[in-house]
Amino acid sequence: MPETTTDSYKGRQNHIRTLDLPAIEVFENIYSDRDYNIHLDFPEFTAICPKTGLPDFGTVTIDYTPDKYCLELKSLKEYFLAYRNLGIFHENVVNRITDDILLAADMRRAEVKVIYGARGGIVTTVSRSYER
Amino acid sequence: MPETTTDSYKGRQNHIRTLDLPAIEVFENIYSDRDYNIHLDFPEFTAICPKTGLPDFGTVTIDYTPDKYCLELKSLKEYFLAYRNLGIFHENVVNRITDDILLAADMRRAEVKVIYGARGGIVTTVSRSYER
Amino acid sequence: MPETTTDSYKGRQNHIRTLDLPAIEVFENIYSDRDYNIHLDFPEFTAICPKTGLPDFGTVTIDYTPDKYCLELKSLKEYFLAYRNLGIFHENVVNRITDDILLAADMRRAEVKVIYGARGGIVTTVSRSYER
Amino acid sequence: MPETTTDSYKGRQNHIRTLDLPAIEVFENIYSDRDYNIHLDFPEFTAICPKTGLPDFGTVTIDYTPDKYCLELKSLKEYFLAYRNLGIFHENVVNRITDDILLAADMRRAEVKVIYGARGGIVTTVSRSYER
Amino acid sequence: MPETTTDSYKGRQNHIRTLDLPAIEVFENIYSDRDYNIHLDFPEFTAICPKTGLPDFGTVTIDYTPDKYCLELKSLKEYFLAYRNLGIFHENVVNRITDDILLAADMRRAEVKVIYGARGGIVTTVSRSYER
Amino acid sequence: MPETTTDSYKGRQNHIRTLDLPAIEVFENIYSDRDYNIHLDFPEFTAICPKTGLPDFGTVTIDYTPDKYCLELKSLKEYFLAYRNLGIFHENVVNRITDDILLAADMRRAEVKVIYGARGGIVTTVSRSYER
Amino acid sequence: MPETTTDSYKGRQNHIRTLDLPAIEVFENIYSDRDYNIHLDFPEFTAICPKTGLPDFGTVTIDYTPDKYCLELKSLKEYFLAYRNLGIFHENVVNRITDDILLAADMRRAEVKVIYGARGGIVTTVSRSYER
Amino acid sequence: MPETTTDSYKGRQNHIRTLDLPAIEVFENIYSDRDYNIHLDFPEFTAICPKTGLPDFGTVTIDYTPDKYCLELKSLKEYFLAYRNLGIFHENVVNRITDDILLAADMRRAEVKVIYGARGGIVTTVSRSYER
Amino acid sequence: MPETTTDSYKGRQNHIRTLDLPAIEVFENIYSDRDYNIHLDFPEFTAICPKTGLPDFGTVTIDYTPDKYCLELKSLKEYFLAYRNLGIFHENVVNRITDDILLAADMRRAEVKVIYGARGGIVTTVSRSYER
Amino acid sequence: MPETTTDSYKGRQNHIRTLDLPAIEVFENIYSDRDYNIHLDFPEFTAICPKTGLPDFGTVTIDYTPDKYCLELKSLKEYFLAYRNLGIFHENVVNRITDDILLAADMRRAEVKVIYGARGGIVTTVSRSYER
Repeated sequence: MPETTTDSYKGRQNHIRTLDLPAIEVFENIYSDRDYNIHLDFPEFTAICPKTGLPDFGTVTIDYTPDKYCLELKSLKEYFLAYRNLGIFHENVVNRITDDILLAADMRRAEVKVIYGARGGIVTTVSRSYER
Repeated sequence: MPETTTDSYKGRQNHIRTLDLPAIEVFENIYSDRDYNIHLDFPEFTAICPKTGLPDFGTVTIDYTPDKYCLELKSLKEYFLAYRNLGIFHENVVNRITDDILLAADMRRAEVKVIYGARGGIVTTVSRSYER
Repeated sequence: MPETTTDSYKGRQNHIRTLDLPAIEVFENIYSDRDYNIHLDFPEFTAICPKTGLPDFGTVTIDYTPDKYCLELKSLKEYFLAYRNLGIFHENVVNRITDDILLAADMRRAEVKVIYGARGGIVTTVSRSYER
Repeated sequence: MPETTTDSYKGRQNHIRTLDLPAIEVFENIYSDRDYNIHLDFPEFTAICPKTGLPDFGTVTIDYTPDKYCLELKSLKEYFLAYRNLGIFHENVVNRITDDILLAADMRRAEVKVIYGARGGIVTTVSRSYER
Repeated sequence: MPETTTDSYKGRQNHIRTLDLPAIEVFENIYSDRDYNIHLDFPEFTAICPKTGLPDFGTVTIDYTPDKYCLELKSLKEYFLAYRNLGIFHENVVNRITDDILLAADMRRAEVKVIYGARGGIVTTVSRSYER
Repeated sequence: MPETTTDSYKGRQNHIRTLDLPAIEVFENIYSDRDYNIHLDFPEFTAICPKTGLPDFGTVTIDYTPDKYCLELKSLKEYFLAYRNLGIFHENVVNRITDDILLAADMRRAEVKVIYGARGGIVTTVSRSYER
Repeated sequence: MPETTTDSYKGRQNHIRTLDLPAIEVFENIYSDRDYNIHLDFPEFTAICPKTGLPDFGTVTIDYTPDKYCLELKSLKEYFLAYRNLGIFHENVVNRITDDILLAADMRRAEVKVIYGARGGIVTTVSRSYER
Repeated sequence: MPETTTDSYKGRQNHIRTLDLPAIEVFENIYSDRDYNIHLDFPEFTAICPKTGLPDFGTVTIDYTPDKYCLELKSLKEYFLAYRNLGIFHENVVNRITDDILLAADMRRAEVKVIYGARGGIVTTVSRSYER
Repeated sequence: MPETTTDSYKGRQNHIRTLDLPAIEVFENIYSDRDYNIHLDFPEFTAICPKTGLPDFGTVTIDYTPDKYCLELKSLKEYFLAYRNLGIFHENVVNRITDDILLAADMRRAEVKVIYGARGGIVTTVSRSYER
Repeated sequence: MPETTTDSYKGRQNHIRTLDLPAIEVFENIYSDRDYNIHLDFPEFTAICPKTGLPDFGTVTIDYTPDKYCLELKSLKEYFLAYRNLGIFHENVVNRITDDILLAADMRRAEVKVIYGARGGIVTTVSRSYER
């Protein structure tokens, strides 16, 4: 462990991995015998910074190759709404979303990215890729 | 099957794969002894959302390496017009177009992409690649 | 042959491959012992659509690695002028230009691309690559 | 050694490698079992040119795959503040930052880049990549 | 030799390869134990067209991985000034600069590119890469 | 009347001024004691060209200062849908929309503009302003 | 009153004009003997659509000439936070903000504008100007 | 007359004012009781430079308020085609077009502008306004 | 005085108006018999926020019509350097600069503007105009 | 005279007003009975800074309403070439060009602007307007 670890952060967001969030619904992919790509941009994502209690704003991008199921957009939007009043770090947002969409639709390939607005002069982008 | 599948969607668009659409005409490629690339942008595509009955708007891109035949643009445009009053999901538009142009011109390589306008704050892009 | 081939097109432009066009001059590459790249943009290309008789406008790009010779720009410009009143399809323009510059300067590598202005709401780009 | 080396530069900034700078704090990565990417843009970096004594301005970009720890942004910002009145060459800024963040968070992969404003009509960008 | 070579060009710029130009100075790379990248944009390059005697304008880009030495910017700028009243073809500018910076700093990797302003409706970009 | 008037156009669209179209609903402006501005962009407008029978695509912009009523967006969208299969010239679209919104909401000031996609290489924009 | 007024809207938001919102603090303008301009962009505004209950996102712009007082940014940001869970129409947001900043700082001149993200394919911008 | 007038130019294009060009057709404006604006962009204009015999390329813009008649686009396009092989100076193109559209449609207000591609490093734009 | 004035701000920066700053030198305008305009962009301005002690970054623009004297750029740059470690509010920066350049060069007309980087999600621009 | 005038500048460029420069030729305006506008962009202007001896680069814009004569572009380009090795301040370049084009073509209205590349982090634009 590095000398300068911020103790006050440690373990503070472990509950995020198991937190209850709305289910993301899926629908049947009638072209599951083809390999193709779906790319979603959701420019109106907002959550709460756990340290300051102030809102964070970002653009969520989901890019995936469906297998048997596709993500249903209306339920996805409601799923994102659940973050509106949730205290959660940038890194955890991306990882939790990736885990949840993989669980819901078991894609062949997926990438999730969130680009956040500037905070204290720093712009943060977090992304994660998955390949079956 | 995931627990949260939206039943009301299931099977609802299976007919799209066999639906009768206008033929896409082709013309002879006089340089079929060369490998080259043709890229078409059709920014004025519109279809109907099967759930809401409201129009969707998008830009269709077709990028391919012709073999013996090239896509004839006038018939392609008429083919796209057949979607104007057709209820069809985003994912199915791309897959149906790809199947149809492959059937018509049997390309060496093809990629079809549709970028849709924002709906409910979400921008969707669907794409599919084919390599002989 | 696909069922829907447009008969009226067949063979109509076979003469393009052998049509007499002005010679493209070259000059000696004094750095032919080095591998390097030359990229030319010619945004003012125009030819005639053989079907409608109306002018087409496009941007020609030539990107190549010279061997013993480089393309001389003034003669290249005059060569392009020969298309101004020539009826020729998009696909054939790119293939004929590629054949002609290869003949003139026998490059190590070349790519020719033409981006056409919109016609009937469709933007067309044709390109071809050559590697010795 | 080339004939034209500028003697007055030699060794002048060797102390930069060992200079005392504020510690960069880290926090625990609760998704360290996943491979994902964090990208930070800090468009408000400034240091002093050791030759002229005048300020340099640049944008620092850090792009990394965390292992056990993530960079804590507030301490990173304070770390950057330590350069505000420090005389340091462009090349050394990037190398020192890369060494320091690797020491602090021992990433799986990292890239540091600084894009400087024009000086004497020349725009300079320095970057360094690290892969474990 | 192609039939259409422009005789008047032959050999006309062979002297460029041995022409005396100001030395490019270097300084010691104190991070030579690291692999990193330096990218320089010089948007204010000008030389003379040997055919017309009129000035050409361009942007020079140098991108390299230093070994023991880095290019010193002030002397580089003075080196570029030597082209201001020099008659030299586009292709030769890039090759001569590449040869000269390699001689001066013996980089691990280098790429030189010059983007010229439009002449007779043609935009020319010449580039050359070197890898040790 | 100029010598070259196209007879076939004369009177052909006079019925557009009295054609039945869906009502545009309004809602009470609770700040009607203030002068302020509402600007609406509707980038997904489509109608039919009366000459060719082919679809036209455009972006409708409405910019107005409300008096007692504001335009209700959902009914406005349905009103625009009525043009989807209507044969109507560019100029008449703008004038009919302007007349209809003035009738519906009796604004203090209004401007309607439609920017059409390119047809035959010509981009058309039609606009009309109203000040009480 | 027009025939087609949507009854369900009438009076529904009259309470917005008198609703309790956090005070906007001000600080003394030490250059009140000069006429100058302050322009604020707040790209992270969000409120709730009273009809759908879904969040709206927008960019608030305030442009004003201060008299004795300037708007204090931290309290302004907290004031905007009060809209985060408030059901309020686009038009009323702009009017309420304008009334509140005028009350707080009694400017010589002010303009408030909100640009909203697309809803149902329509982008809405509302603005209001005040001159003493 | 200035001392340095270029004699060889004098009078050389006086015939342009009376030269026979195709008629521009018009159609009846069914909203002539309204004041509104029509804006046309024609990005594919080409003519011949009378001095060099080489083609010039430009974008023609026509912006007008119709009175009794509107410009018919198909005939306008054919009218522009008449310039394709015509030797005419930049300034005269704009003035001749303005005179011709005023004669054809007797507008209430008109502005004609041509933006030419770079020649010898100079970009030229010529425009003329008319108000009844 | 409004009820909610932040007492802690009052009077805190009155000393800014009389603070000693480096003199801005001028040079004689040899075309003072002409009315013309000089526009300066200084994208690398930095000062300290008096509340947080953290640096602010901005772009200073000066636009003026000189009378007898022009601003000398080297001394202007040194004058800006004096703000580097000065605690000063955005509004006061613009007013102090305007007062100082007017005192130095007594322009016929001047406008000073500073565009600051985002702080807490708010972008601030302050500007002031002077006309003799 | 302000206290801080830089003595070393005084009078140093008075000779610029009377310096001999190549004549700008003109040609007869065959549409002098019309009021219209000619706009020229010359993005490849270069002169020498009299203080440092280093080259300055800029874009010259000339915008004018001709009377009896128009500026002839070839001679204008040669006139600009005379600045290539001339030591002259930014302000004087614009004034001298304006005086010279007015003398040559006696326009009804003219505006000259030069946008210079960044020097020491400052971008300078100088412009002057003339109306008969």
